[in-house]
Amino acid sequence: MLYDLKGKNKYYTLYSYIRDDILSGKIKSGTKLPSKRALAQDLSVSVITVQTAYEQLLAEGYIYSEERSGYFVAEVNVDFHGKRELPCEEETERGCKLDLVNGTAVELFPFSVWAKLMRKVLSDCGEHLLERVPCSGDGELKRAVAAYLYRARGIDVDPRHIVIGAGAEYLYGIIVKLLGRDKLYAVENPGYGKIAATYRLNGAEYVCVNADVSSADVEKSKADVLHVSPSHQYPTGAVIPAAERARLISWAVGGRYVIEDDYDSEFRLSGKPLQCMYSLCPDRVIYMNTFSKSLAPSMRMGYMVLPPALYKRYLEIFSNFACAVPLFEQKTLAAMLDGGYFERHINRLKNYYRGIRAAVTAKLKALPVPCRIHDTGSGLHLLAEFPTAPSDEFIKEEAEKRGIRLKCLSDYLLAPAEIIKCCAVINYSGATYEKLEI
Amino acid sequence: MLYDLKGKNKYYTLYSYIRDDILSGKIKSGTKLPSKRALAQDLSVSVITVQTAYEQLLAEGYIYSEERSGYFVAEVNVDFHGKRELPCEEETERGCKLDLVNGTAVELFPFSVWAKLMRKVLSDCGEHLLERVPCSGDGELKRAVAAYLYRARGIDVDPRHIVIGAGAEYLYGIIVKLLGRDKLYAVENPGYGKIAATYRLNGAEYVCVNADVSSADVEKSKADVLHVSPSHQYPTGAVIPAAERARLISWAVGGRYVIEDDYDSEFRLSGKPLQCMYSLCPDRVIYMNTFSKSLAPSMRMGYMVLPPALYKRYLEIFSNFACAVPLFEQKTLAAMLDGGYFERHINRLKNYYRGIRAAVTAKLKALPVPCRIHDTGSGLHLLAEFPTAPSDEFIKEEAEKRGIRLKCLSDYLLAPAEIIKCCAVINYSGATYEKLEI
Repeated sequence: MLYDLKGKNKYYTLYSYIRDDILSGKIKSGTKLPSKRALAQDLSVSVITVQTAYEQLLAEGYIYSEERSGYFVAEVNVDFHGKRELPCEEETERGCKLDLVNGTAVELFPFSVWAKLMRKVLSDCGEHLLERVPCSGDGELKRAVAAYLYRARGIDVDPRHIVIGAGAEYLYGIIVKLLGRDKLYAVENPGYGKIAATYRLNGAEYVCVNADVSSADVEKSKADVLHVSPSHQYPTGAVIPAAERARLISWAVGGRYVIEDDYDSEFRLSGKPLQCMYSLCPDRVIYMNTFSKSLAPSMRMGYMVLPPALYKRYLEIFSNFACAVPLFEQKTLAAMLDGGYFERHINRLKNYYRGIRAAVTAKLKALPVPCRIHDTGSGLHLLAEFPTAPSDEFIKEEAEKRGIRLKCLSDYLLAPAEIIKCCAVINYSGATYEKLEI
Repeated sequence: MLYDLKGKNKYYTLYSYIRDDILSGKIKSGTKLPSKRALAQDLSVSVITVQTAYEQLLAEGYIYSEERSGYFVAEVNVDFHGKRELPCEEETERGCKLDLVNGTAVELFPFSVWAKLMRKVLSDCGEHLLERVPCSGDGELKRAVAAYLYRARGIDVDPRHIVIGAGAEYLYGIIVKLLGRDKLYAVENPGYGKIAATYRLNGAEYVCVNADVSSADVEKSKADVLHVSPSHQYPTGAVIPAAERARLISWAVGGRYVIEDDYDSEFRLSGKPLQCMYSLCPDRVIYMNTFSKSLAPSMRMGYMVLPPALYKRYLEIFSNFACAVPLFEQKTLAAMLDGGYFERHINRLKNYYRGIRAAVTAKLKALPVPCRIHDTGSGLHLLAEFPTAPSDEFIKEEAEKRGIRLKCLSDYLLAPAEIIKCCAVINYSGATYEKLEI
């Protein structure tokens, strides 16, 4: 087997290559797979990578094991698998060397610090780790998050009103249960499709408003709840100016809510971000953020700050339920925040992405076609407009030929809207210097 | 402070005692609290218990700290707190020495094994722990669960069709999203109220069927989905006989589903449980179980086995989402299952509960009033009927006078139904020999 395993998620890539070869019939059923050690040596990866890939294939029934003789390809029912059931959309596409759609710099995660803190929590807390966690999360982590929000965002938050949840989508689901399925949710267009999808999945209807969010637009939409990223919209990079924020707050004060999704405030490159909308009106704004982007995608942890009245309702509904995030992870993250490790990690990331951004910009400028770069103000993505390109499809095809996966602004449209044409969204959050040298 | 901290959750009990005393005005605002060390000594608990309680109070704003001088009681806004917002309903009530409603024998959790496996996973997997987990869970854990189900329940399950989730309620939510909010869900009556509440919270309607579930009853209910615990109903202990199971399967085959909630199959005392309904018809039965009861309540981990067609739909809907359970916990549990530690733990628990059950039975028989014990076939609860008691309320009040918290069968009624009157549900899952000596 001669697979190219460059990329952030070696085990997954290996697993999907073998799976695809089994499905396409390239590897016949009954074939013996190479031993873990041999394949690891062949591909210059660790044995554990091969083992994890084999285990995934085993778990999904693509291969079977025979004691003392190894792993064999199973008879796969192609009918069942015909549709290529991918465990994750966000896998790196085969043959894609540089993914400019998704990714995190997992390589930069301070794993040794994290492991050290985990060991410390394990011995410090001991059996306390088995205790039931209140629905809104561990008090220590809530206090650490409040202190961090004060330091990083200047928000004065009552730790009581924080809710810790298993990632952003999990929290959106709680919001729908809190505010009601009968409410109309406004989402930004173009925007991050998963937000709209999550509202619909939870049984609520959504309506689109222009990504340059204006109160007039929102009012016209008849929405009850507005989901925005006022400090940095994805993918357009739009920022809601102060006067407009005030108008949106007036709109909300009449019984409505604003969800302030501050998803990448850590990565702003230039200047201080505008004051949070939450600070303008803590009674009408739900502030939310996640650690999946800043720490690791496997870290399913996000949080929201609820207005006092909503927090009351939250307890009425959820106090019987347990928090979905294990206490162990909560205590470790609290130690990371309180010990200043998180902020040190963010600073390291920012420096790193500053360099990556410069390298990406240089690459774009060196292209033999005109390219206009639009600054989105964030350290994680930029917009590259190709005014002479015939179409968005053309841009993506040209990129694909070079092993690059990317999306255009139009791919983020949830409904028709005026956007820049032939404009690529260059999300370099998963890029490395090595990968940029394609 | 002279608090009695007997009970399973010392930190929480201490926290709630102090909180209540602050709310009731017994401890005035501005009062300095004793140092952690001093209070720990006074109450004969560890410093970490006091620290955790103080931190929770701090996080919730009941106390504040001043550098180098200690903790002080905050000015508490009684309006906001008037309603006593409890983080968890399931706290041990103040003055209650024996809780016969909730609980787990956390004391018996093999913590040292768990900690050892955690350390092993941490060093074996290293940075792999940061990788994104496919929505349905880690392949290794799915395989371990399938192997365990085969050993323990004789079910032959394709590991691919297993979905790992953050606890039972989380999985109910996924089921509603999979099957649809427009479906009518039948739940057992009397029954575990949280199941019905979760369906409603997720926007689905439910209808009650008699706990002695009969296909005629289910048919009459017009339900599309039946949620049952066929091997052991809670609280009645009813078991659905084989002939009735077959009729229910025929009912389901016409486009309907059965959710087989096998929540305490590990704790059956006598004989082998009946064959799972899942094995009768893997196309129409969703099998589910959780580890919260058998390991620890903080372990938010459950799983379900989906029929192939539903698993396909599951991937279509959820493949973009990440699994809510951290990979770290998944790998540790897989190691616990594969290493045989889980089954050893369960056997230890069963022996322990056999003793507790005998002690409880002896206590009941020694009462100066007639008491008829109904065997529910499980090692975690029994029914005690008091034919001469005037009312259910009387039984609970008499128990409360003795520091015992319990519920009667009538407390589990979701709708009117014929049940045994004056019948206490003695759930001794959180009882210890020490606590039984009230």
